[in-house]
Amino acid sequence: MVMDWQDRFSPYGRGAGGAETRAFLRLVGQPGLISFAGGIPDSELFPSALIAEAHRKILDDPARAKTALQYSVSEGYAPLREWIASHMRERGVACGIDNILITNGSQQGLYLTGRLLLGAGDGVLTERLTYLGLLHAFAGTEPQYAPLSDLRRAERVHAKLAYAMPDFANPTGQSLSLQDREALLAGAEAHDVVLLEDAAYTELRYRGAPLPSLLALDVSRRDIEESRVIYCGTFSKTIIPGLRAGWVVAAKPVIGQMGLLKQASDFHTSPLTQMVLTEVASRLPQSHIAMLCETYGARLGAMLAALAAHMPPGVSWTKPEGGMFIWVTLPESIDAAALLAEAIGAGVAFVPGAAFFPDNPKHNTLRLNFTACDLSAIQQGIARLGQLIAQRPNAV
Amino acid sequence: MVMDWQDRFSPYGRGAGGAETRAFLRLVGQPGLISFAGGIPDSELFPSALIAEAHRKILDDPARAKTALQYSVSEGYAPLREWIASHMRERGVACGIDNILITNGSQQGLYLTGRLLLGAGDGVLTERLTYLGLLHAFAGTEPQYAPLSDLRRAERVHAKLAYAMPDFANPTGQSLSLQDREALLAGAEAHDVVLLEDAAYTELRYRGAPLPSLLALDVSRRDIEESRVIYCGTFSKTIIPGLRAGWVVAAKPVIGQMGLLKQASDFHTSPLTQMVLTEVASRLPQSHIAMLCETYGARLGAMLAALAAHMPPGVSWTKPEGGMFIWVTLPESIDAAALLAEAIGAGVAFVPGAAFFPDNPKHNTLRLNFTACDLSAIQQGIARLGQLIAQRPNAV
Repeated sequence: MVMDWQDRFSPYGRGAGGAETRAFLRLVGQPGLISFAGGIPDSELFPSALIAEAHRKILDDPARAKTALQYSVSEGYAPLREWIASHMRERGVACGIDNILITNGSQQGLYLTGRLLLGAGDGVLTERLTYLGLLHAFAGTEPQYAPLSDLRRAERVHAKLAYAMPDFANPTGQSLSLQDREALLAGAEAHDVVLLEDAAYTELRYRGAPLPSLLALDVSRRDIEESRVIYCGTFSKTIIPGLRAGWVVAAKPVIGQMGLLKQASDFHTSPLTQMVLTEVASRLPQSHIAMLCETYGARLGAMLAALAAHMPPGVSWTKPEGGMFIWVTLPESIDAAALLAEAIGAGVAFVPGAAFFPDNPKHNTLRLNFTACDLSAIQQGIARLGQLIAQRPNAV
Repeated sequence: MVMDWQDRFSPYGRGAGGAETRAFLRLVGQPGLISFAGGIPDSELFPSALIAEAHRKILDDPARAKTALQYSVSEGYAPLREWIASHMRERGVACGIDNILITNGSQQGLYLTGRLLLGAGDGVLTERLTYLGLLHAFAGTEPQYAPLSDLRRAERVHAKLAYAMPDFANPTGQSLSLQDREALLAGAEAHDVVLLEDAAYTELRYRGAPLPSLLALDVSRRDIEESRVIYCGTFSKTIIPGLRAGWVVAAKPVIGQMGLLKQASDFHTSPLTQMVLTEVASRLPQSHIAMLCETYGARLGAMLAALAAHMPPGVSWTKPEGGMFIWVTLPESIDAAALLAEAIGAGVAFVPGAAFFPDNPKHNTLRLNFTACDLSAIQQGIARLGQLIAQRPNAV
């Protein structure tokens, strides 16, 4: 008799999101397809030689190899935490090693923050369009979502946590202005809400001047021990994503307790990975990030130019200053999921936008990634997409 | 104003266990101490050269390096899942790649099983003395614990899950006989309970013949798709723990859904780690495990001999056939925590047993690890411990 597993799953286990994403990513992994669907860096640009050398150096040293391959502590490898603390101080965040927890990518930072803070049905504020991985990470407690803009309301907002990606947000590519950031901090304080800051794309800025993080703004006025901001950073976008390493910066009681949650879930992040990243992060020339920004910036420019050249009237899109994504709004009559089916036939893929709305999805939206394709693929792909949209009977 | 973080933590976040363990492990990491407190393999015995070579081979090949360092799929790297499926088939478990999920060590397998199956207050059956990491992994839902032996009762047992470590369990070192295993399977079926099998120490057998796993016994009679066993395996004990890689074997619906929970928590395990372990696992000679078993077996023998030579009457201990631990019961009047304070003064450490009881702890118990010390340290350490116990006023 086959087991009735569905009936045995916990409410959380049963409701786990992401199946659509997973099925979808398999589909768009087809060779030959021009895919704007992913959200991944270009592996041609990885500092692979530096990474290989760091592995060699550590593993060829018997004493270091033993440390790298043995069990370790949940908070993370001290020299890497030191490097991160110093990196954060350079970005205006006065902090020390006890304010840093190493996680398996920033995704684990978001996940552990949810587990640390959210009880059943607690309120969470997000942008109307938000990062899908956050919704999946928080799924366990069935949060009550409300818009981030509620922080500007006069009446008391009942929320435990507000989530923001201030720089080049996934999926829209849009950033918060300095004024927006100040308003967010003031609102979080007025409504006594914890701010979860996701800095996944911060270093990938191609135009304009960098803005201080929410944590930096807050810590410019008070000690980090008094801050209500929990900051998640990552090596995935600037070095490589595959090693799965990120970090959380917050007040010590948060880091201490989150370290216990990490211990319960997987003990610790691989010490070899952490030792390698300590080497690579401290030796990676600033020119590497500059090269990434130049390459991705050119791709963003090419995509914006191609959209302007090929999209029929009635189509609009965001103009990001960095990151990985452009958000497109089609005429209301066009369903992006139906368009995708045709587009795949024509050799182009993207992500329909509906999945990014926590509720009341707009079906005439889509997300385009510009970091994983070269310039000619971007031009071709957008031209084909523009043609398909223009041919639609209901296009304006 | 300092934030009132304690008040903001979720019930789960506030109650996270492991702080004692963490503080304790720091204490016993002191140089010069003979520590029987850990539960770690001896890093002198790691196949470091093979691991270094596998890293070199993968990272020196540009195409493989790109795969190794890029984002990947949550279920895990297909060739590693193939290797594990074949390893499990050799151990009597007919299964395929879709029955395997790669996790960050078996700890993450236990953790995700809890999240997948347990709702608030669900019943969980364990041995009276059980693995601490399991209690931490399951803490989120405040399970109602009851003894594993309840599966033999005639009346209906209200439990969702039963947890067992059939080989050389942590902390007692004891194993289930073939008859015990059959009874567990029959009881789980009679009471309609899912069995979570933790095979962390299975390959570390120093005496006696291997016994089939619960999953192998079950799958010898029915298709794995009809099995109620969820099996967690690991590379931590036979290869190295630091890379944090383990696996879950179960029916496809369990693996599929657990893959989504893994995606939500940290996307996936490092593909580089998985590619390295594929190389190392398939090239590691059988003689490596034989060497581990010979070395650890000699240490176990030395510790048992030293206990017999140095412990005063009234002290008893388990006689494991493998694994990493011996469980010691002192005369009832001796509190192991008080003994530890003296022992540390005398340069020896162990873990007081109270923490391993889900309730009603016995304070006259302790756990000894024998894998991390050499023979002379084992003899010296046990001799000192025996002396301290014999000197206690209340020793029998």
